Amino acid sequence: MTALAPIAVPAALDSPFVQSLVSLIRAEDSYGAWENRGDARLLEDYIVTKAEKRAMPIMGDPDPDTIDRVEKFYKAVGLTIEKQCGLMASPMMKMSHEGFGRVVLLVGRLVAFSKSLRDVHRFGFEDVEMLAAEGMKATGQAAAVIAQFPDVARA
Amino acid sequence: MTALAPIAVPAALDSPFVQSLVSLIRAEDSYGAWENRGDARLLEDYIVTKAEKRAMPIMGDPDPDTIDRVEKFYKAVGLTIEKQCGLMASPMMKMSHEGFGRVVLLVGRLVAFSKSLRDVHRFGFEDVEMLAAEGMKATGQAAAVIAQFPDVARA
Repeated sequence: MTALAPIAVPAALDSPFVQSLVSLIRAEDSYGAWENRGDARLLEDYIVTKAEKRAMPIMGDPDPDTIDRVEKFYKAVGLTIEKQCGLMASPMMKMSHEGFGRVVLLVGRLVAFSKSLRDVHRFGFEDVEMLAAEGMKATGQAAAVIAQFPDVARA
Repeated sequence: MTALAPIAVPAALDSPFVQSLVSLIRAEDSYGAWENRGDARLLEDYIVTKAEKRAMPIMGDPDPDTIDRVEKFYKAVGLTIEKQCGLMASPMMKMSHEGFGRVVLLVGRLVAFSKSLRDVHRFGFEDVEMLAAEGMKATGQAAAVIAQFPDVARA
């Protein structure tokens, strides 16, 4: 018998955004309980398929875990920006308990990223590729705004 | 007998900031219960004297009413900026439950005002004059930043 082929790791897992997100999740693992878990397993909560979303109520109050997950997503965007530009990006999120709100990433005096949030109780992505793509898209948008107003980002 | 002298209204009550704050408080009075209350009476919760502060514990968890009061203070700063510059200023506040946090006022893509908060459980001002002075100070600081980066505030 030949050796088993190595399990293919999706390239998305190596994207700077996903690596930032994984490092934030692992930072909370004070007791090393997840040390032997692969990155894909740690990201499981971020994967919500279309079918799963359909099964969820249209309106719903997001639970604290979900809000925490959204917050970590944007923290990871901030961390990726920081790695790319060397400027600290701090997220701020404002949520009504019904799942509507706004998230911003502040770099110096600049609002580098701003997004309205809705249906937060159904927050999630079809697969790791989509998760990586959305995270990198937000990072790219913020980087473009920083490039447009570099003085404000450094103010 | 001569007519009673009119009760002196402190000039601070007429400051644009205090008028904004009063209008936000009155906006919540859906049933007109406070219609006959004077402005000074509505602001009572904002007045915490030095002696009262001394009587409060040094560390403490702010209750929701206090957090709401702080938020309304910065909303009123935002409203005053809006009246002065014609640009909308939206406040965002982030609080740990221990009473530490940060508040920002966002105008377009500009962080017009940013302040670290601490000891929020003891939030309050010696008198209406101090309340007005602090509100107008924050408004002035934000206006200066907007004047420095007008394009970003309009972006």
